[in-house]
Amino acid sequence: MAAVALVQGSSRGLGLEFCRYLLLNKSPAAIIATCRNPDAAHELSALSAQHADRLTVLRLDVNREEDIKTAAESVKTAFGKVDLIINSSAMLHPSGKGETSLRDVSAQGVISTLTTNTVGPLVMAKYFAPLLQRGTGAFGLQPPEKDKQHNGIMVNMTARVGSIGDNALGGWYSYRMSKAALNMATRNLSIELGRGRSKIVCVSLHPGTVNTDLSRPYHRNVQKDKLFSTEYSVQCLMNIIDNLNIDKTGKAYAWDSREIPW
Amino acid sequence: MAAVALVQGSSRGLGLEFCRYLLLNKSPAAIIATCRNPDAAHELSALSAQHADRLTVLRLDVNREEDIKTAAESVKTAFGKVDLIINSSAMLHPSGKGETSLRDVSAQGVISTLTTNTVGPLVMAKYFAPLLQRGTGAFGLQPPEKDKQHNGIMVNMTARVGSIGDNALGGWYSYRMSKAALNMATRNLSIELGRGRSKIVCVSLHPGTVNTDLSRPYHRNVQKDKLFSTEYSVQCLMNIIDNLNIDKTGKAYAWDSREIPW
Ligand SMILES: NC(=O)c1ccc[n+]([C@@H]2O[C@H](COP(=O)([O-])OP(=O)(O)OC[C@H]3O[C@@H](n4cnc5c(N)ncnc54)[C@H](OP(=O)(O)O)[C@@H]3O)[C@@H](O)[C@H]2O)c1
Ligand SMILES: NC(=O)c1ccc[n+]([C@@H]2O[C@H](COP(=O)([O-])OP(=O)(O)OC[C@H]3O[C@@H](n4cnc5c(N)ncnc54)[C@H](OP(=O)(O)O)[C@@H]3O)[C@@H](O)[C@H]2O)c1
Repeated sequence: MAAVALVQGSSRGLGLEFCRYLLLNKSPAAIIATCRNPDAAHELSALSAQHADRLTVLRLDVNREEDIKTAAESVKTAFGKVDLIINSSAMLHPSGKGETSLRDVSAQGVISTLTTNTVGPLVMAKYFAPLLQRGTGAFGLQPPEKDKQHNGIMVNMTARVGSIGDNALGGWYSYRMSKAALNMATRNLSIELGRGRSKIVCVSLHPGTVNTDLSRPYHRNVQKDKLFSTEYSVQCLMNIIDNLNIDKTGKAYAWDSREIPW
Repeated sequence: MAAVALVQGSSRGLGLEFCRYLLLNKSPAAIIATCRNPDAAHELSALSAQHADRLTVLRLDVNREEDIKTAAESVKTAFGKVDLIINSSAMLHPSGKGETSLRDVSAQGVISTLTTNTVGPLVMAKYFAPLLQRGTGAFGLQPPEKDKQHNGIMVNMTARVGSIGDNALGGWYSYRMSKAALNMATRNLSIELGRGRSKIVCVSLHPGTVNTDLSRPYHRNVQKDKLFSTEYSVQCLMNIIDNLNIDKTGKAYAWDSREIPW
């Protein structure tokens, strides 16, 4: 059975590029691309017109538990399994800019950011874990030992600024907190989903600073060679994913494969 | 000017015991006890009747930004400063029990827990930081160097299960994620509020497993000598607080003064 990969948050940025990469490099894998507003996702629509046989687009607002449940049901019906899920959707803050200082912090802003960036991926895990458990281990690098082989892989896109230990600058309260909590979710998921007979590898991945809308307000502060293209970042991240196994679960890795401290 | 301490979430458990301890051991400090429903906080009311000159009770639901703002305004008017704030309020989960597995996870449950346990303390910092900056350093242990002396101390009550690195068991998704994100908030606050001329020491403290309503459903699983009384736990935590200085800011400590990894 062909590989099945799902990219959640695929209308733009890294999510869109993951879809492109998978279509180009992982034939004949089937790709499910979810986004909250398919009608407005023009590049994704173009991709899906080009690859109608391999790319399925589903509407999924990660803030809506109902959407997630419904999407999981249609994936189950159509494919019966998933081998790889990448949770890519996120925002810096509803305003589009991280808080510079406490003065910019509002309860509503923090809650919205946590809801999208943290609760969303966890609720994805809730509804998709059974499908990942039916995965056939099509992604990652399987070890020879049968009892160490995994069925599925779940990737949560994190950020280096979500590392508490690495935090020396402060600011960006909502985003930093959302990614720290997401890393805890990854860790918890790796434990719960790593111990059964159907193993799911769960990791957090940091893409580097990438040329997308999310980081756009800050591009001018980034050294030119430190601002990655989506193509380069996704290539690095897929290289990590291609080498994942159950021994690497429950950790956060950067684009260069190095572990990020919590 | 006498010391001023504020305990947020003081109707029961550790918050109530912090008030008692401060009244008994930190005379003539003024204590502000906040809770969301003062009429139902009978033990706190009794304490306040006994110590009307030193204990002020204010209504504050940590989920309501308006309440926090109003409380900060009345503290400003009445005292003009705060030397110590302890954010003690929290819940395991709206159901009263941590999630045993993914099946128990719901978006609404996670969001409620994050709102109370994480967003609440951060919004407290937003409105009370200016009052802590006017603190006179009445708590902690001031070093001789003038430029290292602090004005105020902010304590966020965390939990060892909020440590991502220490997490080997999984479960309790909402609570673990809320405390990991709270630890990030503590870290961020320590940076922003530690660099000015008016320094605020910000730490996360873990009280041990304590005999309160929060942990009640799990008491039977705890070895008897590992289940602390609120009196013992608060004594240990106040010992840490009494020795805090700016060099110890931005970290998480357990009741035994040992640092907890992120
Ligand atoms: N770019 C960087 O420098 C950088 C650095 C570190 C980490 N990251 C992480 O990498 C991941 C991808 O970021 P990016 O740079 O590709 O961001 P991006 O270009 O801004 O794209 C964000 C994506 O998230 C989607 N999204 C937002 N809210 C959603 C919701 N409620 N439901 C469903 N989808 C939603 C957006 O969909 P719409 O088109 O519908 O808005 C969009 O597809 C994120 O997790 C981000 O935190 C990025
Ligand atoms: N007990 C333990 O074993 C343990 C272990 C590790 C960490 N901790 C941490 O220690 C702290 C104190 O816990 P505890 O054991 O004393 O818990 P507790 O006895 O259950 O008391 C919880 C307190 O939080 C208050 N609260 C809840 N939601 C609130 C809201 N929205 N606004 C204002 N107050 C609210 C409650 O007020 P009401 O009376 O109005 O409900 C109550 O005063 C918490 O941060 C907890 O996470 C405890």
